[in-house]
This record gives sequence, C-alpha cells and structure tokens, in this order.
Amino acid sequence: MRDQDEAQEKRTSRRAFLRAGLATGGAVLGGGALAAPQAAGNPKNQPPHVADWSRTLGDGVAVRAYGKPSKHEANVIRRDVQWLTAARESSVSFTPIHELDGIITPNGVCFERHHAGIAEIAPADYRLIVHGLVDKPLVFTLDDLKRMPRVNRAYFCECAANSGMEWRGAQLNGAQYTHGMVHCVMYTGVPLRVLLQEAGLKPNAKWLLLEGGDAAAMTRSLPLQKALDDALVAYRMNGEMLYPENGYPARIVLPGWEANMWVKWLRRIEVGDQPWHQREETSKYTDLLENGKARRFTYVMDAKSVITGPSPQAPLNHKSGFTVLSGLAWSGRGKIARVDVSLDGGRNWRTARLDGPVWDKALTRFYYEFDWDGRELLLQSRAMDESGYVQPTKNALRKIRGVNSIYHNNGIQTWHVHKSGEVENVEVS
Amino acid sequence: MRDQDEAQEKRTSRRAFLRAGLATGGAVLGGGALAAPQAAGNPKNQPPHVADWSRTLGDGVAVRAYGKPSKHEANVIRRDVQWLTAARESSVSFTPIHELDGIITPNGVCFERHHAGIAEIAPADYRLIVHGLVDKPLVFTLDDLKRMPRVNRAYFCECAANSGMEWRGAQLNGAQYTHGMVHCVMYTGVPLRVLLQEAGLKPNAKWLLLEGGDAAAMTRSLPLQKALDDALVAYRMNGEMLYPENGYPARIVLPGWEANMWVKWLRRIEVGDQPWHQREETSKYTDLLENGKARRFTYVMDAKSVITGPSPQAPLNHKSGFTVLSGLAWSGRGKIARVDVSLDGGRNWRTARLDGPVWDKALTRFYYEFDWDGRELLLQSRAMDESGYVQPTKNALRKIRGVNSIYHNNGIQTWHVHKSGEVENVEVS
Repeated sequence: MRDQDEAQEKRTSRRAFLRAGLATGGAVLGGGALAAPQAAGNPKNQPPHVADWSRTLGDGVAVRAYGKPSKHEANVIRRDVQWLTAARESSVSFTPIHELDGIITPNGVCFERHHAGIAEIAPADYRLIVHGLVDKPLVFTLDDLKRMPRVNRAYFCECAANSGMEWRGAQLNGAQYTHGMVHCVMYTGVPLRVLLQEAGLKPNAKWLLLEGGDAAAMTRSLPLQKALDDALVAYRMNGEMLYPENGYPARIVLPGWEANMWVKWLRRIEVGDQPWHQREETSKYTDLLENGKARRFTYVMDAKSVITGPSPQAPLNHKSGFTVLSGLAWSGRGKIARVDVSLDGGRNWRTARLDGPVWDKALTRFYYEFDWDGRELLLQSRAMDESGYVQPTKNALRKIRGVNSIYHNNGIQTWHVHKSGEVENVEVS
Repeated sequence: MRDQDEAQEKRTSRRAFLRAGLATGGAVLGGGALAAPQAAGNPKNQPPHVADWSRTLGDGVAVRAYGKPSKHEANVIRRDVQWLTAARESSVSFTPIHELDGIITPNGVCFERHHAGIAEIAPADYRLIVHGLVDKPLVFTLDDLKRMPRVNRAYFCECAANSGMEWRGAQLNGAQYTHGMVHCVMYTGVPLRVLLQEAGLKPNAKWLLLEGGDAAAMTRSLPLQKALDDALVAYRMNGEMLYPENGYPARIVLPGWEANMWVKWLRRIEVGDQPWHQREETSKYTDLLENGKARRFTYVMDAKSVITGPSPQAPLNHKSGFTVLSGLAWSGRGKIARVDVSLDGGRNWRTARLDGPVWDKALTRFYYEFDWDGRELLLQSRAMDESGYVQPTKNALRKIRGVNSIYHNNGIQTWHVHKSGEVENVEVS
C-alpha cells in the first residue's frame, strides 16, 4: 500500500506540477506558473546577509522540557463562537483545520465539546465499573486497564453537529467553524470486548449504557454489537495520555460513530437488554424531520469532505499560477475510495490525489494541484467511500431531511474564491 | 493491510491473554493472572461516591486555546544529562519513550540536539537558496515551498549517538537515556527532488551540501542519489508547523539516515561533484575503530529495538500475573519484519506482536503479553527488518567495531527485572 502510494505520488504530483507549468507556456518557474522562486541574483529576495538568529545562541535543550509551537504560530488554536451557547462549560471549540496538514491532529488543538466543563481526575482516583447483565461485576483501576492487551488505531472523531449551523444556508466564514468539530488521533486502548468478556455477558445482554464521570454525567446507550466489534476504552492519544478536555484518563472510542457517544471520563458501563432513552439520545442527537418525526439512533457519520485550503481563513495570497488545493475526507462506513473536486461549483469534476495513509474511519488527506488563471472559483469537494456512498449536495440532503435538525449535515461545501484571493462561504443552487 | 492487522490482533491478543490466565489455573481475573480488577461489591475498590469532579463545573471550551497534558503527567518531558556536555546550547535532550505508546511521538517531547541553541526564525524572513551545479540558482520563500506539491510521511529520526554511552558497558538507567534520541512524526513537505528539478541539475552533479541557518551553521554532505529518492524539505510535523527546536520553519528529512544530517533551519543547498568533508562528517559522525581507522559516510541507521516497558523508569508495580511488555523497533533499511523477545537474557526467544502501522523507516510498536511468575527476568528484544538484517548483540558489535566510537550502537539492550519489579540496565555476556 505504502509503496504503491509513493510510486503513485511520484507520478501524479510531478505530472500535475508539469501540467500546470506547461499550461502557462512551459516556463515552470521563471515568471510562469510558480512565479515566486526567484533567480538567486535578485537582491530583493536575498535573506539578510547575517541574520540575528545566526549570530546568537538560542535556548538550550530541555529549557522547554515540554515543547510548544513557534510564537509565529500563535493563531493555530482552538476557537469557540461565544454567541453559540449560554456558557463555555457547555459549549464547543473548533479544530483549526485550515492551519493543519496531513491527517494527524495534534493533541493541543483537538476540538472540545463539554457539557459541564473539563473534569480533572487524578489517575489514582479513577475507577471504571462494569455491571448489569454480567456474570461478575468488575471495577477496573487505570493500572488494571494498562495491564490489559492494548491496540493502537487512528480514527476520526466528529461531533454529529459538525456543520450543523449550515442547514439553513451558509453561515460561518471559515472551515474551522463549518467543519472543525472533527479531529483524528492515534488512540491506544483496550478493546471494549476484552473488558466485557472478563465480566462475562448474560445471554440477554443487548445494549450498554456508557456514563461519564464529569458533572454532566453524560450517558448514552450503545448497541452491544458495536461494543464487541471495534470499540476501545482508550487512555492515550498520539502516544501520550489523553488530554483532560478529551477525557483523561479514559474515554470510549467508537470508530465512525458520532462523537457525543464517545463518553469521556468514562466511569460506568452497565449492560442491559434495551436502550435507556437518555436525554442525549432523545431531546438531543436525534434528527427532527419536516413532518415532526425524528430520526433516532443515527450513529454513523456518513462520508464527508471539506477543502481546508484555500478557505475563508486561508485565502490565496498569490494572483495566479501554481496552486495547491488541500482538504480532508472521511467516512464512518470505511475507507475513503476517492475524492473529486470542482473549481466551478459542481459542473466539472476532477479526481484529487489522496496522500498519506488511507485508513478505515480515519481522516484522509487529499490534494489537487492546478494552475490558477486568476479568475473566480467555486470550489467543492465530494467524497466517496468504499461502500459506494457518494457525499450529497446540501440541497439533496435538505429535500429528504428538511432544515430543522442540527445534526448529520454532510453536504458538499462550496467556497467562493474571489480574484483578490479572498474566500467566502457560499451556497450554489 | 489494516484489516489483516485487526483480524490478527483479535486472534493473538485474546489468545495470549487467555493463555496467561490458563497458566495460573484458569481464573483469568478472580485473583488469578490479572489480579487487580475486583468484584464490584468490594468496598475498598469503590470510587468516592460523589467525587469532586462530578460536583463542580470545570474549565470551559477554549479556555485552554492550545491544550496541554494533565498536571498529573508532568513527568512526561524531555530530559537532558547535564554532565554530558559543557553547555546546554550544544547538547541533547531525550524523548520520554518509557512514558509513550504507539508510534507517533507528540511534538512537545521529541528529543532535541542543538549545536548553538534554538534559532528563532520569523517565517517572513525565511529563505532557502539552491545553487552550485544547477542551471538556474533559486531562492525559495516559505510561501513558495507551501505552493509546491507536498506529501505526508511518518519516519523515525534517530541521532547516530543514540545508545552511544553504552559502548563500554551499561551506563544509563532508563530507556529515555539509553534509547531516547529517537522520535517518529508525520512530516509534511516537498520532495527535495522537486526543488532540484526546478533548479535543473548539471550533468556532473553528484553531492549536495546542506547548511543550517542557526549560529552553528551545521553543514553536511549528501549524496545526490538520496536527495532524488525520498528526501523531503519538511515544514510540518504531525500536522502543525515544525517546532522551533526541530528546525522551524523548514528542515531536511532523510528517511532512515542519521539525524545529524537532517539539517534544521535549512537555509542553503549547494550542488557539487564531491563531498565537502565538513567538521560534522570528519571529526564527528565517523566511527573510530580499534585499529585507529574510522568508518565514514555511515549514514544508514541499522535495525534496532528497545523494550520501553518494563524499563528502569517504568518498573512493574505488581508482584506477578498478566504483564504487557511493550517496545519500539525500527530500521533505516525498510520495514520491520519481526521482533523477538527474550525473558531470560537471550537463551529463549518468542515472537512479539506488531501493532499499528508497520511502515518503511518508521517506529514500529511491539507487544508481548505474558504471565509473570514473579521471578527475576532478563528482558531483551531483537529486531529483524525486511532486508533480512538481524539486530546484533552488543558484544558482537564490539568485536567488529571496538569501543572507541560513540556512534551507531544498535546492539541488543538487556533490562534486569528484580522480584520487586524494579528494573536495571545490565549487560549479559
């Protein structure tokens, strides 16, 4: 797979690059498609002859025992929208997806969704109870969990309300706000089925109740089948322990399913024979339709994609020429099979290049390199997954679901690129 | 690949877990192999009935706009050894590999090696010059690099001096110090061949000189073949921009080759027809043999592995029973094919379970689950790569290379686990 990817990448990226060059008359660099790199003799493009940083000693090793980004990257942060919710303790912050690349989200910028703020749990005080329809109720300490067989898997985690503000039309000007309730990290944890097998399931076991340890005591019902398939009790993200806002010291990971169910600060798993119909699966996280009925148990996040650059917070800062369009695609039903992009609002489509790992239920990075002629663009991306599902337009979704829900909006996003390079969130009919 | 991994994992981890249980008489949990989880009725194992964190609101979203680990993880940091070097500006700090899992190293704890401290370069001031035996010398800004076709690849980065203190015998008590000059991140960057193709190589081009922009002006010679193969000019790690200590805003990535050549704060690439014989490739980063001669141009990091837990800084805190042995393996010659572990100092070997991605020239995670009988152990791991190379013992290496070098020590590490669970760095003959 990896070797194929690399061979493919060598062919396609080079070809696209040359194509863009040839499209402007063959001068790939000298004032052509990629205008910026200059002949070295051009004095205005020379670096300062002796720069400050090459004359002085900088900070030594381990002065920053835990490192952080450059001060020049201070804008790469989670942001919230303060008018969105009454209190920050029950609100959401958004991943700065327009400032990232690849598929791994650094732990420090993973979006947050709290219902009672961040619980601060000391590892020694942590307990996880498994009870209900089991042969032997059990209590696990964190050390117990760390002594059980563990696996490492990267998965996307997306809030069901991601893009939820867009049901009634283009609202928020930035990929961080329209699509930033998603992140993708490498989790380390114990398969949930191992814990359940230790407790021993009664024959009538069919559902689990997952309960969080924060002041919201988040509770969600989980079908047993998912628990026995790929669910994890995770305690690490990207190698280090979970960050407090993501459930330190342990949370549930439900690959491909809506993030609200990924209960953080996990303290209790009850085994039962039917769903519990808790608040977060009745008045919330159900999808109200036009006829007044609501879809419920809509767990899977359908295939979706977004162009992260150019995007409203990441405009083009050149007037024309070689341009890299970059974005993310993901599907709760498996691997991304293909991503197409359109420069003209969906009239013509071209297949994007997938780069890096293409994993089951993980973010997938795509690129499309092209020679921008400086005219306005209506950028769209459309994800297809291995199940054959194709990401729909927003209008196609609205026809079926109406505009009353705030959940499960996976419609195609349109960005309007102006001649100035500025980018705007728009709708196309 | 991934699906195979998962199926394999389901079979092997469960089997190993059951085997350990059966080995102590069949009681997998109740006082048997995995002693700690208790029946829920046992009052001393109950969590506080109403914990503080479930009674109060915690911090809201984006209060920590850039997140950080829990205060309970304050020990997961880079550490240096202050007696090792005269000044911290020309020294090394070590990755806390004993406190991590999986294969991704978080950016904040990647080991550092500086020669003049951390250069602090503003992105707008950054320039990269490509000159020498080229048709057209070029200067690239950071924006130029970001407009070129990019790829995302995870690679290990290991200092040639990693484990260098161990040539003359067991010295440092901790995997962080013996093997922590390694990290593995997902890089985003431009293939170096693309930049060279833009400049146009003269027919006699054979070597490159890479120069850093810090006050040490680090310079290394690089064979052209590697530059045209898989070298990257990288500007991101794990999705976000490089951290200052790792070369912000751009560095060279040379998959599988010694980290000293991965020039940080990259400012100049000169194309020539022979190596430059700079300080860092003559008096340093050559391997002095017993006969007074030195090996040079020893770029590739041979296959190596280390058990990260249990290890001196990560002792066992149980007396016997189910135990997870975890470690890292890597090879500069390709993928890891197999890792064997020994519990008795190399007399008997068992094959470990590889978990998560097994990538070309990246860290690979291995586990071995076993039922510890409480007796002393002499733990070893032995990596094999897809080229057929097998990690040698330290003594086998010493026979060929003597003990005068500090570089390229990839010998098998031994940890002595005492009955108390404490772990010590030892040598076996």
